[in-house]
Amino acid sequence: MAIRIGIFGYGNLGKGTECAVRQNPDLELAAIFTRRDPASISPMTEGVPVVAASEVADWAGKIDVMILCGGSATDLPVQTPELARWFNLVDSFDTHAKIPEHFAAVDAAASAAGTTALISGGWDPGLFSLNRVYAEAILPQGGTYTFWGKGVSQGHSDAIRRIEGVADARQYTVPVPEALERVRAGQRPTLTTRQKHTRECYVAAKPGADLARIEQEIKTMPNYFADYDTTVTFVSLEQLHAEHSGLPHGGSVLRSGLTGWNEEHTATVEYSLKLDSNPEFTASVLAACARAVSRMHAAGQTGCKTILDVPPALLSPLSGEELRRQLL
Amino acid sequence: MAIRIGIFGYGNLGKGTECAVRQNPDLELAAIFTRRDPASISPMTEGVPVVAASEVADWAGKIDVMILCGGSATDLPVQTPELARWFNLVDSFDTHAKIPEHFAAVDAAASAAGTTALISGGWDPGLFSLNRVYAEAILPQGGTYTFWGKGVSQGHSDAIRRIEGVADARQYTVPVPEALERVRAGQRPTLTTRQKHTRECYVAAKPGADLARIEQEIKTMPNYFADYDTTVTFVSLEQLHAEHSGLPHGGSVLRSGLTGWNEEHTATVEYSLKLDSNPEFTASVLAACARAVSRMHAAGQTGCKTILDVPPALLSPLSGEELRRQLL
Repeated sequence: MAIRIGIFGYGNLGKGTECAVRQNPDLELAAIFTRRDPASISPMTEGVPVVAASEVADWAGKIDVMILCGGSATDLPVQTPELARWFNLVDSFDTHAKIPEHFAAVDAAASAAGTTALISGGWDPGLFSLNRVYAEAILPQGGTYTFWGKGVSQGHSDAIRRIEGVADARQYTVPVPEALERVRAGQRPTLTTRQKHTRECYVAAKPGADLARIEQEIKTMPNYFADYDTTVTFVSLEQLHAEHSGLPHGGSVLRSGLTGWNEEHTATVEYSLKLDSNPEFTASVLAACARAVSRMHAAGQTGCKTILDVPPALLSPLSGEELRRQLL
Repeated sequence: MAIRIGIFGYGNLGKGTECAVRQNPDLELAAIFTRRDPASISPMTEGVPVVAASEVADWAGKIDVMILCGGSATDLPVQTPELARWFNLVDSFDTHAKIPEHFAAVDAAASAAGTTALISGGWDPGLFSLNRVYAEAILPQGGTYTFWGKGVSQGHSDAIRRIEGVADARQYTVPVPEALERVRAGQRPTLTTRQKHTRECYVAAKPGADLARIEQEIKTMPNYFADYDTTVTFVSLEQLHAEHSGLPHGGSVLRSGLTGWNEEHTATVEYSLKLDSNPEFTASVLAACARAVSRMHAAGQTGCKTILDVPPALLSPLSGEELRRQLL
């Protein structure tokens, strides 16, 4: 019997989840939940019900795992604990600093309800976290480095859009090649924010806007841009949409460690992602996590989990025997 | 209380394990077991007992996890099931084709004895297997590629040493750069053995040996070299020992997958290792696995496991709370 999946929220991530469910024969899309008018949604999957989010509780018992596709700023802190009362679930909560707080809230709700919840699935947090944990457990002496990009940062793009005179914008986060090379070469450098990443902004201004002021406002924006070498390129709205409409992303986690009696040898571990579509890949991770959640729930493991708690075999559709024979 | 570790076999891997234990404050080296005369062994760790392998059963109850450092050809198939009668243990059994058989033998012994055994820890099988499983679970559509090297293959070096007229030899396995680039570029090529790796041999011949015959014997050796583009370089014994005495290795696991409703986007996952010392790094993986085995045993999980069964958090000395706060 296929695992019945619900998608809660139908933006880029929800659509990516719909694609990921389609690729996994043991998963089946049971329903899509939306806060918009359900009649306004046309899912790609034939025949799948679109349900008002307000009616989600009626679906308790009809969904094996709910995949939450809302945002981390305001949606998930409310939705994940709330939905854990009725459903096993997976979310991609990605505000690193607030993970302990989110974990506690979801764990309380899921433990009380006897459901199984996995938070912060995705790639960072998620796969990158896994690789930090594996690499640091194996190489206790050394340095860990995370680089993001080249890829589109939605948060930074939004910040530019809020500047007066900006019609639309797209921001790419780009690792500094020399920094990456130094880490790969085993130098274990101490790197400032500026030395690790640059920020490339493509901006379409409104007619008559003061370009010099916009550029200045971007480059001096605290937290977002002031600590980085930032370049601003003005393009037409048409060009922006034609050349910068994708959502690529990626990055690398590196551990440069030391082995040997006198730590005389270097060992470098690198995990990297290169993604044409960030939301589709994130959704693919969530789909595999949903499989694991379904199995953990069946085994009586309730409460809040993260991918660090999941035996890797549970993510795969293959049996333990198949995994040992084919992939070990 | 520290986890008491036994090292069974004191070659390169055993010495690497001794180094790895030293780097982990929660692990403590309790004894080294050897089939050689214990008096002939001088461990690097001050005060650690060196015990004859034949007396190992006397140490039941005094070792929390035994790390087996013998070879996969003849040692581990016998030693792992035998030692699982008395000890929780970790081995690095790496004959991929015989893993199901080895697993069954160890599982029977460990289940009967109520011990916990983890086989095929290391990096391939081991970390590379993990990455194959994660990547295929997340990206069901696509191709998986494993490249090894540049690094020393002990088996291939030994094969050359058995040729008449060879004094010593070292063989490097080298990935073909163009093949790696094609996979990284998302082309998902079908690659033959010859297209994936080349083999570089450094050979010191005995005085008066027929170099042309040696080169010919190497290049036409079935299984080992005949299917590869192989280069043979003759060097002096001094040069061989001066320039080729290390045991570097590494490699990459890549998954080139497809996402999107019509599989219109590419996602590439790459995990790579660059190791100055293959045995020291392998031992570092075994040490982390020993920590997990100790915890799984304490939780009542007995029988044979692989790293695919281990929740990643169990490999780390940090608590779940610390991991969520610092590394997730």
